[in-house]
Amino acid sequence: MSVDVVTFGEVMVRLAPPHFQRLEQARSLDLEVGGAELNTAVGLVRLGRSAAWVSALPENSLGKLVANRVREAGVSDRHVRYTDGRCGLYFLEFGAAPRASSVLYDRKDSAISRVTADTFDWPALLAGARWFHVSGITAALSPGAADAVGAALKAARGLGLGTSIDLNYRAKLWSREDAARVMGGLLRDCELVIASEADAEFLFGVTGADFPAVAEGLMARFGVQAVAGTRREAPLVWRNRFAAVGYSAGKLYESAWYDVEIVDRLGAGDALAAGLIHGMLDGDLGKGVDYGGALGALKHTIPGDLPWLDAAEVEATLQGQGLRVRR
Amino acid sequence: MSVDVVTFGEVMVRLAPPHFQRLEQARSLDLEVGGAELNTAVGLVRLGRSAAWVSALPENSLGKLVANRVREAGVSDRHVRYTDGRCGLYFLEFGAAPRASSVLYDRKDSAISRVTADTFDWPALLAGARWFHVSGITAALSPGAADAVGAALKAARGLGLGTSIDLNYRAKLWSREDAARVMGGLLRDCELVIASEADAEFLFGVTGADFPAVAEGLMARFGVQAVAGTRREAPLVWRNRFAAVGYSAGKLYESAWYDVEIVDRLGAGDALAAGLIHGMLDGDLGKGVDYGGALGALKHTIPGDLPWLDAAEVEATLQGQGLRVRR
Amino acid sequence: MSVDVVTFGEVMVRLAPPHFQRLEQARSLDLEVGGAELNTAVGLVRLGRSAAWVSALPENSLGKLVANRVREAGVSDRHVRYTDGRCGLYFLEFGAAPRASSVLYDRKDSAISRVTADTFDWPALLAGARWFHVSGITAALSPGAADAVGAALKAARGLGLGTSIDLNYRAKLWSREDAARVMGGLLRDCELVIASEADAEFLFGVTGADFPAVAEGLMARFGVQAVAGTRREAPLVWRNRFAAVGYSAGKLYESAWYDVEIVDRLGAGDALAAGLIHGMLDGDLGKGVDYGGALGALKHTIPGDLPWLDAAEVEATLQGQGLRVRR
Amino acid sequence: MSVDVVTFGEVMVRLAPPHFQRLEQARSLDLEVGGAELNTAVGLVRLGRSAAWVSALPENSLGKLVANRVREAGVSDRHVRYTDGRCGLYFLEFGAAPRASSVLYDRKDSAISRVTADTFDWPALLAGARWFHVSGITAALSPGAADAVGAALKAARGLGLGTSIDLNYRAKLWSREDAARVMGGLLRDCELVIASEADAEFLFGVTGADFPAVAEGLMARFGVQAVAGTRREAPLVWRNRFAAVGYSAGKLYESAWYDVEIVDRLGAGDALAAGLIHGMLDGDLGKGVDYGGALGALKHTIPGDLPWLDAAEVEATLQGQGLRVRR
Amino acid sequence: MSVDVVTFGEVMVRLAPPHFQRLEQARSLDLEVGGAELNTAVGLVRLGRSAAWVSALPENSLGKLVANRVREAGVSDRHVRYTDGRCGLYFLEFGAAPRASSVLYDRKDSAISRVTADTFDWPALLAGARWFHVSGITAALSPGAADAVGAALKAARGLGLGTSIDLNYRAKLWSREDAARVMGGLLRDCELVIASEADAEFLFGVTGADFPAVAEGLMARFGVQAVAGTRREAPLVWRNRFAAVGYSAGKLYESAWYDVEIVDRLGAGDALAAGLIHGMLDGDLGKGVDYGGALGALKHTIPGDLPWLDAAEVEATLQGQGLRVRR
Amino acid sequence: MSVDVVTFGEVMVRLAPPHFQRLEQARSLDLEVGGAELNTAVGLVRLGRSAAWVSALPENSLGKLVANRVREAGVSDRHVRYTDGRCGLYFLEFGAAPRASSVLYDRKDSAISRVTADTFDWPALLAGARWFHVSGITAALSPGAADAVGAALKAARGLGLGTSIDLNYRAKLWSREDAARVMGGLLRDCELVIASEADAEFLFGVTGADFPAVAEGLMARFGVQAVAGTRREAPLVWRNRFAAVGYSAGKLYESAWYDVEIVDRLGAGDALAAGLIHGMLDGDLGKGVDYGGALGALKHTIPGDLPWLDAAEVEATLQGQGLRVRR
Repeated sequence: MSVDVVTFGEVMVRLAPPHFQRLEQARSLDLEVGGAELNTAVGLVRLGRSAAWVSALPENSLGKLVANRVREAGVSDRHVRYTDGRCGLYFLEFGAAPRASSVLYDRKDSAISRVTADTFDWPALLAGARWFHVSGITAALSPGAADAVGAALKAARGLGLGTSIDLNYRAKLWSREDAARVMGGLLRDCELVIASEADAEFLFGVTGADFPAVAEGLMARFGVQAVAGTRREAPLVWRNRFAAVGYSAGKLYESAWYDVEIVDRLGAGDALAAGLIHGMLDGDLGKGVDYGGALGALKHTIPGDLPWLDAAEVEATLQGQGLRVRR
Repeated sequence: MSVDVVTFGEVMVRLAPPHFQRLEQARSLDLEVGGAELNTAVGLVRLGRSAAWVSALPENSLGKLVANRVREAGVSDRHVRYTDGRCGLYFLEFGAAPRASSVLYDRKDSAISRVTADTFDWPALLAGARWFHVSGITAALSPGAADAVGAALKAARGLGLGTSIDLNYRAKLWSREDAARVMGGLLRDCELVIASEADAEFLFGVTGADFPAVAEGLMARFGVQAVAGTRREAPLVWRNRFAAVGYSAGKLYESAWYDVEIVDRLGAGDALAAGLIHGMLDGDLGKGVDYGGALGALKHTIPGDLPWLDAAEVEATLQGQGLRVRR
Repeated sequence: MSVDVVTFGEVMVRLAPPHFQRLEQARSLDLEVGGAELNTAVGLVRLGRSAAWVSALPENSLGKLVANRVREAGVSDRHVRYTDGRCGLYFLEFGAAPRASSVLYDRKDSAISRVTADTFDWPALLAGARWFHVSGITAALSPGAADAVGAALKAARGLGLGTSIDLNYRAKLWSREDAARVMGGLLRDCELVIASEADAEFLFGVTGADFPAVAEGLMARFGVQAVAGTRREAPLVWRNRFAAVGYSAGKLYESAWYDVEIVDRLGAGDALAAGLIHGMLDGDLGKGVDYGGALGALKHTIPGDLPWLDAAEVEATLQGQGLRVRR
Repeated sequence: MSVDVVTFGEVMVRLAPPHFQRLEQARSLDLEVGGAELNTAVGLVRLGRSAAWVSALPENSLGKLVANRVREAGVSDRHVRYTDGRCGLYFLEFGAAPRASSVLYDRKDSAISRVTADTFDWPALLAGARWFHVSGITAALSPGAADAVGAALKAARGLGLGTSIDLNYRAKLWSREDAARVMGGLLRDCELVIASEADAEFLFGVTGADFPAVAEGLMARFGVQAVAGTRREAPLVWRNRFAAVGYSAGKLYESAWYDVEIVDRLGAGDALAAGLIHGMLDGDLGKGVDYGGALGALKHTIPGDLPWLDAAEVEATLQGQGLRVRR
Repeated sequence: MSVDVVTFGEVMVRLAPPHFQRLEQARSLDLEVGGAELNTAVGLVRLGRSAAWVSALPENSLGKLVANRVREAGVSDRHVRYTDGRCGLYFLEFGAAPRASSVLYDRKDSAISRVTADTFDWPALLAGARWFHVSGITAALSPGAADAVGAALKAARGLGLGTSIDLNYRAKLWSREDAARVMGGLLRDCELVIASEADAEFLFGVTGADFPAVAEGLMARFGVQAVAGTRREAPLVWRNRFAAVGYSAGKLYESAWYDVEIVDRLGAGDALAAGLIHGMLDGDLGKGVDYGGALGALKHTIPGDLPWLDAAEVEATLQGQGLRVRR
Repeated sequence: MSVDVVTFGEVMVRLAPPHFQRLEQARSLDLEVGGAELNTAVGLVRLGRSAAWVSALPENSLGKLVANRVREAGVSDRHVRYTDGRCGLYFLEFGAAPRASSVLYDRKDSAISRVTADTFDWPALLAGARWFHVSGITAALSPGAADAVGAALKAARGLGLGTSIDLNYRAKLWSREDAARVMGGLLRDCELVIASEADAEFLFGVTGADFPAVAEGLMARFGVQAVAGTRREAPLVWRNRFAAVGYSAGKLYESAWYDVEIVDRLGAGDALAAGLIHGMLDGDLGKGVDYGGALGALKHTIPGDLPWLDAAEVEATLQGQGLRVRR
């Protein structure tokens, strides 16, 4: 039973004090699960694609809990390995202007950080799929995890799958030098790269007057065929303006701009990635940018990292449906 | 023990996931009760009028729960009948831009859908009251319920009560044709009709350059004496601008416009209706529009369908009280 | 991808006021999902078997919610049909002596009540499976549902699957006469029947001095090969004694008796059925009775209808593990 | 619109930390309302009688909240006065053996403590009613409140109503001397007195070998016609055995004994009083003892002070209905 | 073990219905503690100063609860006296435009209202400290409390401590005349006064064209050396613009203006006072205004009265850190 | 400012699903803090002694949260060091018979595991104190932590403090061999050892016919002067019988046996230790056993690890106060 898309990465248990409390105040924590590549897989399933998420989890209640929620969201957990190591956690504080939201990671020594290039049989696992997606976070978890990402991308290219990577540089996980070296290598096997202009400059020194210029720079340097990203105006914590942008073959695509009232901003970029891949599966980056912009915007309105929406809702938003109560 | 106002309609148990969750995510649901005509009766009680709500409920825990809450809100449940049939339910998802709030109804075969023209002894029940109010939703529930609305309006007119109807067209409950035919008949017994310009056009083909023109059209066609409605600018889900408008005897009334921060938009139109009737009971549509605008605006700030406010608060708002903490 | 066991039945959304409240008091309801055949399928998955649940659900948020939770619990929802009709609901009040717990059903016109003998292609759907399980509740939902149960059992027998039915007579769903007629027909295709002595007598007039005698009566009358049931001493609502019993080929099996502190009694019988089938899949009714007793007893300690336990925990209980905190 | 029973007393807002927390640990408090005489009025309404509750409340949100809940429970608040003074509060900690539950009162200077003999027009207010009930707590609130109780009892006797008082001695509210003097005076106007043997001895020095002897002592001393009380065996906090007892005209009545699993013990004695009066209204103390025992036992199973039960449930308990889930 | 700053005032238990409910709707209340002078002491501790809070509390669970929370927030409770009297309470309703938030006080006869000039040995208690802070609320509680404030200020001046007072006029606690007389006396011993222009005019008739003019007026009249205050633009309840302002020695200081998304506005002024004193301890009113503006703005984002922030966060805000998620 | 008692150990953040949920079901977790030595320190403070807790915490929100709660409970955090490393966590599932409660530790690489013999200046830190207490868990955290325990005990003995250790063997933390070697060394500096007979045998091979025999064995082997322990009969998870036992100088002390209804069993042994030390500080092991039995029994009734009780409550329990509601 093959799926359309395979993603690879870590899912952490997310613990957040309710109602804008600081962690110091908390007497209870809301529990969600999330991780960039799972979030994207869920977005794809909600848009009508099938998806599997590859990872390693500890053989305990927290590992089971994560796998349960993966299946609940409609994503296959068939390829998850249960190994030694912890379940990664992160603690989230919701903010309000002028206090930004903040995340405290507690993910060291997680099960997935122990994987190696050989943990998964990528050719077997990817057979029959059409796309493989990963983010730079997975590569940052450990050298073994970076090797596994490399092996996965190679296998995917060998099988003719489309491939995408979201740069997602996280300074707490690795140095600029390590990230530049490892990610630079991985990008050579990627068809689509999702990158901010800041990361492109910080990691690779690629700059430009505008998004097309930066995209051309990445394309020239790494041979990727398409570059996409998020546009965000963030004057407040509870309200942003949001859009998706993409560039390929000399053409720039920009989605509609959305005013978003923000319930939970986490996972919005990953939902955007899902929209992009949804379009790419139809060979249409413009469609991907449109769906990515709408799905990413809508994600802000939903608690947790996962985009609990469906294709009909995304399409109604694309068509400019208003904000009256739907009855 | 007669009351000032009698209203007739369905109350449903409302179930909503907390904190902007989608229904699919829910592990608990907040329970409220609400229904257009009850909401209006409660608004009147909060403004100092007495009111009774007429309906049919199932003889089970949910039916009792609804009646309890009706009394809690200060409205008489003396005329409620307990019959076969279910308790209507609705599931509410709170939205955030660009995701509108949405309602999933589960009200088929409710107790009130089984009433007929003879279920209630309207002349006895209305004796001593001064006003009767209903909405188009009641008439849409079943042919029997429509007959009961007709009987109630006839009885009210016969006893000299003021009468009002809120068109409230709901496409999920009946077709345009049925609604136009039934509502057209009922309007002939109404003194005040609350209608949006969209409904006036959709149901009756009544159009006009502005609100007075549409109101004149409805007055000419159905013999009603006053027409009122809601003005709303809704650029976002959490924030609107809101006002009431009324027209009668060639004169247009418009309330102040209110910036509203929206906790719960449901029942705002019904609270507006309460303000209107409060004015009409004093023979003063202008007062009704002012109170309707203020009570309707304030309702947005309160969870649940019911306007838990009082006359003093409404009047302070009318007088432009600011937004500092009241101590 | 075939599974070990297929079950067929309704899942309802279960809504319960927290902390022993009466429904009339409720301001929020805890939401779980449950249905006899799903509960059993989940129990089998937790014991290490694979299982699929067959049903019909409405194409709305509640239907999706149910399917999500089915997958979360590790059961396949591949064969679920989305059709017209409602999502069945039930409202649960938790009791305490001398007040029994109580259930208010609101399941009329559910999607599954609209299925017919032809809705599912049973031979295709059951191919590769080893066991089919259903309860009398499914047959009671509508004549069409009863026909579908009949078709499923016939197909299962034709394919050589083991089959089991839990009588589970529910007086609110059908009359004794209808139940006796329909269930009598279905039993003829069952290998294992789970029945209380009370139901055996009430429906079929089968009585006896003890469990073996009643079991022999059912075996003689319907040709079933094994009969099993629950033993319960219930002096209080929060504490019972519990065991499983089974009879086949002239031999009586009884599990250990368990003192149970009751968090949530619903689904205990369905968990017991899972244990029974787990044993039957190994051709060992005695093992089934042991696992059924332990899993059924453990289920009482877990909120919701589903037995969130695993094989290791069941086995530790079978081996008499004590009640000290496990660290 | 007269009612069957009128009661007079204080209702406090009750604030309790959830789940057995100590107050010192609390970050939220569950809010209920309760007061002996309201609890009894509610019990009567649930058994099918009509009842009004007389009191004084402050003119603020807390006062309104209390009145709302009174009406929600089906009791008339028509005679409530809104005056100066606070809303009485009490803080409740739920215990577990060996820690008893405990109450911290914060009721000083409550609105009702300011009433006088003239605050209420008792003859008008009681006209048409059949029974008046009060407890010693009301008399203990202030000399004015004691005067009002005296006036009420006199008026009730003058109008031919049955009268009852529950001694309910509270050492924190008044001294033994004051209580003995005031209550001794009030008892002379009571038909039925509800008293523990401990209170009878402590306040009046009335002792005896058994309940009939004590009852005879009270009857001889104060001219009351019937004496009733609670029987309780309380080896633990979460589990008691409970029964009602009554004595009149030389005859002893004892209800069935109930094993009770205790969700919330507060108000059980007041529910027992409701059952007693329910019987007395039919001139049948034996019936009163039976209903009092059953309603009092059932009350233990419900959170809050109010007995959210109905006559059918009480009667099923009287008939020995078992503890299986009611479906 | 002396501390940097000593404050003196009442802490009340604060009870608020969740999620914008009106008190009338509440079934549970969130519990926090707060009081102007404690809030300021906590702010100072969070900025790195040590602080003690002086007060009187009742010897019961509520009194202990308050003291626990004082210590939890890092403030010393060493000098708290346990006496007769109640624990002050206040009930808070959160609003939304056009409904302002509101507070219902229930603080009469609190323990601290019973203190006198002799309750505390101020010279001993203040020895070693560098600053003493109080608000007009403490002085308003009772004549004895006002005497105690006077004694404290005298002792502080005698020991060479810096002193500050926040006028904080509360009309519900005392008359304009009493406030003017008492506060006028107290100001003569204050180095820094925090005052709104409205209070300055209302209490003392001090007016002026702008803040410096008003400040000069207060300085001339009472001999204070610095005057500070809050600047607020409040077009909505959920969103304000906020800044601090200060004036001394002919120089005006104004902090940055902050757009604040408001979770909980209470205590923002007290946090501002903490920032002011933090600067004054370094002899730098300008620094105080900057820190006061930032800490006050940030406080709006945190539930409860206390500013759960730290110096690093305040400094990042002062340096214009953006609103992206901090990882 | 010296304290009576100093304890040394780890505090973890404890996360538990509410209402008997399994971790796999959890959507929120209740947060408490606890650790054996803190629990004991809190018990001592509640009995009227002063106490400080020595530990290392990470310099992040979780570390601050722990320190806040330590102070909230009245224990000094003055000697806590902030270092690298994680904050230890543990996940707790509450059970019900036949399912035991269970704990999942996630404490690897915690800040305290990085301490060494030199991290704390024990002689300075213990100066002025009268007792030092620790448990075997601290020694098990790392060799450095074991060294620190050794240094502390040596310093305590050098300064003439009483010393106690609770063996508390945890198989997940270290091997029998390591534990026996390390603990054997530490016991030589202990005056009082708290040990189960099982641990005494498992670690040291010390056995005996009864508690005095085992105690004599430990005294002979390690030179300790007193041995104490817990007696528990645990037929169910929600109900136990509990007592304390102690032996010294040839004399056996046993507390009263308590029937305990169990809200939260964690920390009961640590509360017992507090009672023991409370007696030892008065040179009275018999008093210690009595207070230990009562405080330990009472602890079962309180959520969280900490014994939120006071001396008056413990003494009322010692005097056999009943289980009626305390008003």
